[in-house]
Amino acid sequence: MQIRVINPNTTAGMTAKIGEAAQRVASPGTRILATNPHSGPVSIECHFDEVVSAVGVAEEVLAGEREQTDAYVVACFGDPGLLAARELTRAPVIGIAEAAFHMATLISTRFSIVTTLGRTGIIAEHLLQSYGFAHHCRRVRAAEIPVLDLEDDGRAALDRIIEECLRAKAEDNIGAIVLGCGGMADLTDEIRREVGLPIVEGVTAAVKLAESLVSLGLETSKFGDLDYPRPKTFSGEFARLSGTGG
Amino acid sequence: MQIRVINPNTTAGMTAKIGEAAQRVASPGTRILATNPHSGPVSIECHFDEVVSAVGVAEEVLAGEREQTDAYVVACFGDPGLLAARELTRAPVIGIAEAAFHMATLISTRFSIVTTLGRTGIIAEHLLQSYGFAHHCRRVRAAEIPVLDLEDDGRAALDRIIEECLRAKAEDNIGAIVLGCGGMADLTDEIRREVGLPIVEGVTAAVKLAESLVSLGLETSKFGDLDYPRPKTFSGEFARLSGTGG
Amino acid sequence: MQIRVINPNTTAGMTAKIGEAAQRVASPGTRILATNPHSGPVSIECHFDEVVSAVGVAEEVLAGEREQTDAYVVACFGDPGLLAARELTRAPVIGIAEAAFHMATLISTRFSIVTTLGRTGIIAEHLLQSYGFAHHCRRVRAAEIPVLDLEDDGRAALDRIIEECLRAKAEDNIGAIVLGCGGMADLTDEIRREVGLPIVEGVTAAVKLAESLVSLGLETSKFGDLDYPRPKTFSGEFARLSGTGG
Amino acid sequence: MQIRVINPNTTAGMTAKIGEAAQRVASPGTRILATNPHSGPVSIECHFDEVVSAVGVAEEVLAGEREQTDAYVVACFGDPGLLAARELTRAPVIGIAEAAFHMATLISTRFSIVTTLGRTGIIAEHLLQSYGFAHHCRRVRAAEIPVLDLEDDGRAALDRIIEECLRAKAEDNIGAIVLGCGGMADLTDEIRREVGLPIVEGVTAAVKLAESLVSLGLETSKFGDLDYPRPKTFSGEFARLSGTGG
Amino acid sequence: MQIRVINPNTTAGMTAKIGEAAQRVASPGTRILATNPHSGPVSIECHFDEVVSAVGVAEEVLAGEREQTDAYVVACFGDPGLLAARELTRAPVIGIAEAAFHMATLISTRFSIVTTLGRTGIIAEHLLQSYGFAHHCRRVRAAEIPVLDLEDDGRAALDRIIEECLRAKAEDNIGAIVLGCGGMADLTDEIRREVGLPIVEGVTAAVKLAESLVSLGLETSKFGDLDYPRPKTFSGEFARLSGTGG
Amino acid sequence: MQIRVINPNTTAGMTAKIGEAAQRVASPGTRILATNPHSGPVSIECHFDEVVSAVGVAEEVLAGEREQTDAYVVACFGDPGLLAARELTRAPVIGIAEAAFHMATLISTRFSIVTTLGRTGIIAEHLLQSYGFAHHCRRVRAAEIPVLDLEDDGRAALDRIIEECLRAKAEDNIGAIVLGCGGMADLTDEIRREVGLPIVEGVTAAVKLAESLVSLGLETSKFGDLDYPRPKTFSGEFARLSGTGG
Repeated sequence: MQIRVINPNTTAGMTAKIGEAAQRVASPGTRILATNPHSGPVSIECHFDEVVSAVGVAEEVLAGEREQTDAYVVACFGDPGLLAARELTRAPVIGIAEAAFHMATLISTRFSIVTTLGRTGIIAEHLLQSYGFAHHCRRVRAAEIPVLDLEDDGRAALDRIIEECLRAKAEDNIGAIVLGCGGMADLTDEIRREVGLPIVEGVTAAVKLAESLVSLGLETSKFGDLDYPRPKTFSGEFARLSGTGG
Repeated sequence: MQIRVINPNTTAGMTAKIGEAAQRVASPGTRILATNPHSGPVSIECHFDEVVSAVGVAEEVLAGEREQTDAYVVACFGDPGLLAARELTRAPVIGIAEAAFHMATLISTRFSIVTTLGRTGIIAEHLLQSYGFAHHCRRVRAAEIPVLDLEDDGRAALDRIIEECLRAKAEDNIGAIVLGCGGMADLTDEIRREVGLPIVEGVTAAVKLAESLVSLGLETSKFGDLDYPRPKTFSGEFARLSGTGG
Repeated sequence: MQIRVINPNTTAGMTAKIGEAAQRVASPGTRILATNPHSGPVSIECHFDEVVSAVGVAEEVLAGEREQTDAYVVACFGDPGLLAARELTRAPVIGIAEAAFHMATLISTRFSIVTTLGRTGIIAEHLLQSYGFAHHCRRVRAAEIPVLDLEDDGRAALDRIIEECLRAKAEDNIGAIVLGCGGMADLTDEIRREVGLPIVEGVTAAVKLAESLVSLGLETSKFGDLDYPRPKTFSGEFARLSGTGG
Repeated sequence: MQIRVINPNTTAGMTAKIGEAAQRVASPGTRILATNPHSGPVSIECHFDEVVSAVGVAEEVLAGEREQTDAYVVACFGDPGLLAARELTRAPVIGIAEAAFHMATLISTRFSIVTTLGRTGIIAEHLLQSYGFAHHCRRVRAAEIPVLDLEDDGRAALDRIIEECLRAKAEDNIGAIVLGCGGMADLTDEIRREVGLPIVEGVTAAVKLAESLVSLGLETSKFGDLDYPRPKTFSGEFARLSGTGG
Repeated sequence: MQIRVINPNTTAGMTAKIGEAAQRVASPGTRILATNPHSGPVSIECHFDEVVSAVGVAEEVLAGEREQTDAYVVACFGDPGLLAARELTRAPVIGIAEAAFHMATLISTRFSIVTTLGRTGIIAEHLLQSYGFAHHCRRVRAAEIPVLDLEDDGRAALDRIIEECLRAKAEDNIGAIVLGCGGMADLTDEIRREVGLPIVEGVTAAVKLAESLVSLGLETSKFGDLDYPRPKTFSGEFARLSGTGG
Repeated sequence: MQIRVINPNTTAGMTAKIGEAAQRVASPGTRILATNPHSGPVSIECHFDEVVSAVGVAEEVLAGEREQTDAYVVACFGDPGLLAARELTRAPVIGIAEAAFHMATLISTRFSIVTTLGRTGIIAEHLLQSYGFAHHCRRVRAAEIPVLDLEDDGRAALDRIIEECLRAKAEDNIGAIVLGCGGMADLTDEIRREVGLPIVEGVTAAVKLAESLVSLGLETSKFGDLDYPRPKTFSGEFARLSGTGG
């Protein structure tokens, strides 16, 4: 089984890190192909970054369709372009935010989120409401670190995240914490050790959900509103997308 | 006052039509600048089309910022890229779906939506939930006509819309109907006459809301999560977006 | 266009102040007629005050119908008698609470309310839920000042409001503040300057929404549950209302 | 114990009927005092009727406070003036809509409402949402009979109600039916016999809830937002209300 | 009228105390039969305790059916086995959590809950959501005392509860407090005196609701999903339940 | 890895069938141990059956804890005793209803449920609300077949299910169907072929979720409200449970 793990930003180092985290939890027969769009923002920290990155996500799915791809993971916590990606393939497509939320509700009754910048909190809030998990989440917290700080070697970012997780543990009346950024995928174990609470990380969660759906023979529904796009003309720099569809 | 009315698809004929509808309701001092992105889909009928068009919306806002623009309208019923657009400017940005929902709740207690293709209904459902209008909307109905059929001269599309509106009037226990596509902006009067119910159309509603906010001196909040993006590097074909922000 | 701005309480000074605020934002062709009921409470600070004032609101709409009135504004933050007022006319009727909520959601993702007395907070909570804005509002705050203190010359009331707004800005993770009393209409500019956040005030917001609906040719729906009352007998001191209806 | 059952409309025949229904279910030591306001509409079928009747409800509570009254019932299905009434007294005040909803959820998992005119359905919908019972109610149905038709001797109105109840039983997947008008209080037994489903009627339900609260020593909270009104000046015909409060 | 008040745990002292509290508020003609299952946990402090106790509740209802029982009360704040109990009888069955919630909303607009152990808070949260009272409850608080500490003579447990109630009064913006444990039934009066707020206790509330339904002739609906179980075979130690049903 | 798949009813044939379905989708290293309680109902079709079966589920978890068990599945669509089971172990515990809901939202935007008897629909409705999936589910449908009819050889039950699924496909505007009974686990493939829509079955979905959590090192949180029960005395036939806990 091949799972294309799409890092929606263009920072290759983060893509590699995400790919390693994904591979570590993958089943023996699963090959992880970690990719990122050629074009787009180096990190995703607001709606504008999301909008641009979502095109890259779609193109990465189209690229995956030209190979043999069994499932996709969208590895940014805002799940950018998720429903569009699902329209482009029969294969399952899993966002890491939804994956983390699903998993967190299976092992706890209430969780908090610890994300990077405070301004991304609204993205998490919107997803929680849309997916139906709003009442399972006690609080969205931010460590107030830019995403790319997670790529630095030092402990500063990690320490801030652990600090915020400990605060959530002490104050939020929760049973688990969801990490709110794909860039935290390699930190999960250390955070778990320091915090002493189940820590749910989305990249790894999404890989397992993707594998699960493939094993079950469950594909993205092509009946109704997730059907392939009606092929049409795209103009300008997006002309290459003309005719995309079933 | 200059309002940039952005048709997120690239069909110039629809842009012109939308611009005329906008100008017809604009106040004397308001100049409507109807534009569409250079690049993108010719119509927007699914999440994939939306994702691509949202980049165009953002670029149109950036273009507007280089001129003197007082407000923006995003003239596609899915409000693609709305929050991203708000991040890029202090000027108010209004989506036509939200505009129509707001106006409909001011003149009726419950409304239905009549949109183009059934598959776009889920987009309306998601917006209703996110904005808070889900309990005001009795039903999302589709005339099952592709968006570009609205550009044809014949009556076929119009007749289908009127038919579906009359069905809504007879069956849905409503006081008003929201038209679910920017391409219906020029049909409002005729539909209103035939259906005998308040018909709320989003382009025109959005223009008035945009003018209203400007008159009130209310700008998009730059405090908190709609602040300008943190400037950063974009790679590839989006390199031109590097450094976008406040 | 004539807009009848109804101050539901009987304090003429507040009516004048509200009228001036309304006129300041009105379009050139709009004439504001600020009125208040002859009978009713001098201020509205609880459900009982609201109930009595709602009769006055209805009578003011009936008075407006005997003249040429294009739209109505109900200028008390509890929107007393709003749906009743809508039944009595084809003209649009806008409450200042709903107006402020609508406008606030167009320029921010989350807002807080700063109102007068804490006991009126429940009225705002009920409106937020009924209108669908509950999840957009982080917190309802009270400056704990009686409404008529806003009529005094001194700075005390204003200072308390600014103080509470600054607290909201610091603590509530919001992008805008809604002022929770019609009597604050003349303070908006100063509060905005001091607080440094978009401040949404309902009287002015409602005037623009009323003008907008009139421009769009959108009237209160007379189809369904906002139709004119069925004419009937009223007894006692309300006998004068007998036969009211379409 | 004395319970003042307030029929908010001014139709004495309906007041008597409601009083009899109330007395029939009252406990031995309970004296029912059925009253109606001197001034107001002869029936309540829309928001405008409600607004006027709510003043009468408040005045009836004030009258009750001058005697020894242990509890109040507001006997119109829209619960007009309910929160205002609660502010005016320490005694419990029960609306018949809320009473019926509470009781219906105790004997069934889902219910439907059968009311008089379709246009009053929105009032029930708003109450269901505000009280928290929206998901317990499958459907609001109307027999499309004016309220005062319930005062006629003939069977026509009763037959229409039974017919609609039977339709609800057949189609709505429910366990109980709530009767949506105080004027149906004398018909409950016959409807129950004909329909073969638990039929919950609000006047009788409210009497028992009122008695229950009195027995439990539970009074309307005077701590917080249901406290007595702050005494103030009322002008014009409502001058008699000046100084009302704790 | 005979009401079987079922203490779902097996602590006879608590059963007696609950029975006394129930009898104190019962109407003259009401006989309270306080019972507890022979088998089960001595206190109920988590989901596991609830699951085991629910069988005891069901068996107590079956026992009640063999006598003449007019109504049942399930006297544990998690309402364990409530819907199952309703399936087993035509008589009304009232849970003390639901009873307290219903009553609290009739005398206040918002309440808080003060329960025993923090870990039981999630049970209250789930009930609030399922019943529809989530938005009426400001906060679920725990005194962090094990249930059986309420059986001890000393003041320690009582003092902790009063302390938490006073904190709720000071901080929660509420009008009433709901006591979150059947074992607090005998403490209500003292808490009420000390706290100076309406204190709603579930056992006593449920008795009055049960009496009310019986007086109204309202039985648990046997139409639809609360109908008697389809008789079937039970195996092993539950073989005695074979054939249970209508 | 060993997963204990608990069929909460006592019909050994169904347990075997469920075990086979589970094994078919299990990963190579996973050993499925399908069990059912010794004591309890032969099928689960109402709340009463659920209450009794939940004790069996708890005891099966306790039995699993005495062996080496890595995860548990509760294989009845009402998820009976799910939270209690989670308290009894660190291992993940997955209900088949929740599993199916989670998976269905990953491949479609809206789904319907096809269950056995109509009276069990309310159980699904309650779970949908509690878990947060209510707005993802268009409709709960029943084939009106008793659970044990699924154990018969003939096609009658299967035909009824397929018929209802086809109706859902034609009428419900959905992308997927959730099968609402563990006893349908062996029918999934045939239903999928006949209906031409993704069919989500809970037993198989739960096995994959259980494996996923184990792979991720995510255990049921022992911090907060899912912690082990406080050990205590159980009396009577449940005395064997005394001291259960961490």
